[in-house]
Amino acid sequence: MKVINDLLGYNNIKIIQDNEMFNFSLDSVLLPNFITINKNVKRVLDIGCGNAPIPLILSSKTDAEIIGVEIQKKVSQLAQESVKLNKLENQITIINEDIKILKDKYPTEYFDIITCNPPYFEIKDKSKLNASDYKTIARHEVTLNLENLLDISKKLLKNNGTLGIVHRPERLIDILTLMRKYNIEPKKIRFVYPKKNKEANILLVEGKKNGKKGLKIISPLFTHKENGDYTTEVKKFFE
Amino acid sequence: MKVINDLLGYNNIKIIQDNEMFNFSLDSVLLPNFITINKNVKRVLDIGCGNAPIPLILSSKTDAEIIGVEIQKKVSQLAQESVKLNKLENQITIINEDIKILKDKYPTEYFDIITCNPPYFEIKDKSKLNASDYKTIARHEVTLNLENLLDISKKLLKNNGTLGIVHRPERLIDILTLMRKYNIEPKKIRFVYPKKNKEANILLVEGKKNGKKGLKIISPLFTHKENGDYTTEVKKFFE
Repeated sequence: MKVINDLLGYNNIKIIQDNEMFNFSLDSVLLPNFITINKNVKRVLDIGCGNAPIPLILSSKTDAEIIGVEIQKKVSQLAQESVKLNKLENQITIINEDIKILKDKYPTEYFDIITCNPPYFEIKDKSKLNASDYKTIARHEVTLNLENLLDISKKLLKNNGTLGIVHRPERLIDILTLMRKYNIEPKKIRFVYPKKNKEANILLVEGKKNGKKGLKIISPLFTHKENGDYTTEVKKFFE
Repeated sequence: MKVINDLLGYNNIKIIQDNEMFNFSLDSVLLPNFITINKNVKRVLDIGCGNAPIPLILSSKTDAEIIGVEIQKKVSQLAQESVKLNKLENQITIINEDIKILKDKYPTEYFDIITCNPPYFEIKDKSKLNASDYKTIARHEVTLNLENLLDISKKLLKNNGTLGIVHRPERLIDILTLMRKYNIEPKKIRFVYPKKNKEANILLVEGKKNGKKGLKIISPLFTHKENGDYTTEVKKFFE
């Protein structure tokens, strides 16, 4: 069922969801609130934008041109509808394409920032996956794996440009190793914990293309209080 | 000046310090409280044991034989005095030797656990260091660097044996990369923050030799409250 939701506090931005495909998650709210954005940013690319929560939130933080790429046609249509609904067509462009193909249509070193909330799960047995399923494609590395993402980011990011990824802590080592391999130096990490005394369940990483070594682990973020409510810090992301 | 301090709450263990060399730090209290120790542990090696805070604390947590190696003669003598003072000669052996030499005197796969609070700083310009200084040797990678440590650990750890390291978060990527290179799979990480809303300043990592992939980032530890006092969790380490 298709519904229009408020994308909570963001300048009254609304987002169109379809729970037969998937809804945007907290991950997509955390990433645009984590990455470093300055006034010089001219072009942002969000890879695998889904129904566009990251482009929509970013539009409240920067005047840069924002391009969202989504491989799934129906999902990209939802994203497009949300962009229109919010009258953001002048700032946000949604492209229904495979980024592995689209990347060759841009000049190298074209973007200041690339963001991605990629599929989290490595594929161990393809036969168990339904590759036509919306959720499978969004969640499993069917069409884009981490190495693809880093390879593409290396090509499309300007020198010293920023890559921001939200992922699962289990993949930390793979992510850091691949970032180094593709000359995107990890500079800032934040671990997100569901509650105090729990293991981290979300990882936010920012790297700079050809950046100098120097990693900071910034303060941890707890998403929920003991009683299950969002913490004050997370509530602020929705205000 | 040489003084005898209580190693705080640990079964009334005392430790001999000499502030002309260096005092044990919080790092050495955090590591033995972080690593996984079970009843089957027979032999533990602490590399670069200093005045032996880690062996002394471990003695309250396991009946295993504990060997502390310290390259600096005077520092190892302090360690030896502390062992005697606490009547732990039957459990703890202090050896004044370079672990790069000592490693060849043990059979391979000899230890269940290796702990290390290694020198933190990479050497960028040797000419600026006073290599005869106690603190320089303890703090800079003059006599032991990370790759040496991993190489030695790979040789001396039993299959599925545990390596525990306390280090600085800036070195996270180097540590994880080298652990993988030497088949010691990172399994558990804890970041330690001086206060809420501050960057992490201590990193605790545990790996298993030939272990399966699967990393957990356990709950963050804050060492100090806003008023500067130790937090309840840190105070517990001293009780």
